[in-house]
Amino acid sequence: MAEQIVAIGLEGIVVAETDLSLVDGINGHLVYRNHWARDLAVNNTFEEVAHLLWYGHLPSQQERDNLQAALADNRQLPGHVKAAIDLIPADVDMMSVLRTAVSLLGQPSHSWPPTLEQVISLTAKLPTIVAYRQARLEGRELPEPRKDLGHTANYLYMLQGKEPSSAHVRALDAYLILTQEHGMNASTFAARVVASTRSDLISSITAAIGALKGPLHGGAPSEVTEMMEQIGSKENAEPWLRRALEAGERLMGFGHRVYKTTDPRATALRTVASALAGDDPWFDLAVHVEKVGLQLLEEYKPGRKLNTNVEFYAAAVMRAVGLADTLFTPTFAVSRVVGWSAHVLEQAANNRIIRPQSAYTGKMPD
Amino acid sequence: MAEQIVAIGLEGIVVAETDLSLVDGINGHLVYRNHWARDLAVNNTFEEVAHLLWYGHLPSQQERDNLQAALADNRQLPGHVKAAIDLIPADVDMMSVLRTAVSLLGQPSHSWPPTLEQVISLTAKLPTIVAYRQARLEGRELPEPRKDLGHTANYLYMLQGKEPSSAHVRALDAYLILTQEHGMNASTFAARVVASTRSDLISSITAAIGALKGPLHGGAPSEVTEMMEQIGSKENAEPWLRRALEAGERLMGFGHRVYKTTDPRATALRTVASALAGDDPWFDLAVHVEKVGLQLLEEYKPGRKLNTNVEFYAAAVMRAVGLADTLFTPTFAVSRVVGWSAHVLEQAANNRIIRPQSAYTGKMPD
Repeated sequence: MAEQIVAIGLEGIVVAETDLSLVDGINGHLVYRNHWARDLAVNNTFEEVAHLLWYGHLPSQQERDNLQAALADNRQLPGHVKAAIDLIPADVDMMSVLRTAVSLLGQPSHSWPPTLEQVISLTAKLPTIVAYRQARLEGRELPEPRKDLGHTANYLYMLQGKEPSSAHVRALDAYLILTQEHGMNASTFAARVVASTRSDLISSITAAIGALKGPLHGGAPSEVTEMMEQIGSKENAEPWLRRALEAGERLMGFGHRVYKTTDPRATALRTVASALAGDDPWFDLAVHVEKVGLQLLEEYKPGRKLNTNVEFYAAAVMRAVGLADTLFTPTFAVSRVVGWSAHVLEQAANNRIIRPQSAYTGKMPD
Repeated sequence: MAEQIVAIGLEGIVVAETDLSLVDGINGHLVYRNHWARDLAVNNTFEEVAHLLWYGHLPSQQERDNLQAALADNRQLPGHVKAAIDLIPADVDMMSVLRTAVSLLGQPSHSWPPTLEQVISLTAKLPTIVAYRQARLEGRELPEPRKDLGHTANYLYMLQGKEPSSAHVRALDAYLILTQEHGMNASTFAARVVASTRSDLISSITAAIGALKGPLHGGAPSEVTEMMEQIGSKENAEPWLRRALEAGERLMGFGHRVYKTTDPRATALRTVASALAGDDPWFDLAVHVEKVGLQLLEEYKPGRKLNTNVEFYAAAVMRAVGLADTLFTPTFAVSRVVGWSAHVLEQAANNRIIRPQSAYTGKMPD
């Protein structure tokens, strides 16, 4: 038998070579295909960065218009998918609904290999699924998707029934760009494992949604919003944070498992939030809480370098644009589907089945 | 940064320690929790072996009766699941239907950690999903599940609308037992990756079904049935096989990637099929084709030790009991859900998130 390496959890095991992204926690770097993600978030749109990840380069104006039109043309859900969503009991969480609705998009044309056309069609539909379900839960009709609006603006429009402010679109766009891709992680890996059997794109993305649903991965962003709501005002920031640190509590939204220095996604979102602080009290509060929090952390835990992470500003963005806590992880899926599908395309282009080993710890029969 | 190991495809990487099974291809061994799988297939029932995998020991008579009753009590599908299946277009393949229907079983009570109760409820429903869809495709009503029938007998009963012969139940039971579990593989691994984020059982099994759907994993068992149909009769076996070997063709159902000697699942199914050869012309033909095939392979490819694999006898069993080719992989899922869910329970009992690395092959930005 060939030599075996035991690696429960697969920490430090490289399972794929990828052109898509570099996550360098030591240096605080996040790169999407030769570009700094923080620059893309500030300077580009959801569609442009999706084009970069899917096609390998930022689009020309013509290419961008084409992709925006293709996404806009694919937003409608098939009638049977809407009818099936309506059948799901109201107490079923949005991630389960999203997993089922994506699975329902499977059809004979979705056989191996996955195509860019399938990827665009699927990515276009995720916001509609979330907004359709949300509208039904709120007892209203989903407004018709608006072809004149970009991906992010139309998502907010469908969720809220009114055209969003440009400040809100800008902020959510930045968040969605920064969460489109993040190297290898449990959901992306699940998508690649499924794709490696030559299964279809829908099966891969359904698996990824299921993995993102887990709180160890999709996270608990509502913990940050809860903290921000308890703080409530700039004046209350220092006494609240000081009390928390005196009591030995963790400050939510500070520190990150991978990024040992600044989280480049937080840096980019801070840039966007700072520019919009006059437009929205949530951004104003977030910028202030970060400043005070960093000062107090240096005072109480000197040298620990606990910077804000992406969830800190994500919470501010979500609150500012008016998304309920139940929509945080589903909105994460709305952006991450870009990275998942880019990984599935990459896996398919040079496929090798992912089939590890297990070690038997039971007894041998007589 | 910690030392990295590159292992694209994860060959030879042990990702989990497991009490569930040992797959030893060199020696032709398949062990389920301290028992030879081949013995279990010949001597035990689907429920007894599921009990072994889930609870860690073969059941007492009382335990077996309890599990059989619990499975029988959980066969009914919720109304909204049936209604949603009815909405799926008729040309959507059964594995996609199964993936969606399982996803639809997600509900708030299915939160972390997974439980044996959930596992039993889910395992009980998979045959009903397949049989319900099949009945609808054939334009008939699904018969009410029969509580007096075991898991395997009831599956055949629901599929065919009449009580199956004991020979058919025996043969299919052996096949289902032998495919309940097979160490680490792409679908089982996908289930564990999803579970490792503390997602729910439904998300894990939905992912596994998506992985099994891929032809590199779920296989193409219809290739064997096609061969058997072309051979058609015992008299035609030698000339047909000789012509194929002279033409340099591969004989379907002979040879296995893992098992370098006999495939223990084929051995067990041969035992069952041989005992039933008088009852069914398919078993009779299979036993004969194997004998002639092995003689001719020794003549044309001496020393290669190409024995029959599980798919060879699986095809005979499927044909004998009357299952269409479109039901082969779904029926594989009906049995493998036992192993998948046992792995999810094992992962949950000692969880560590499965999060490998990728290596960036693009450029750094300026």
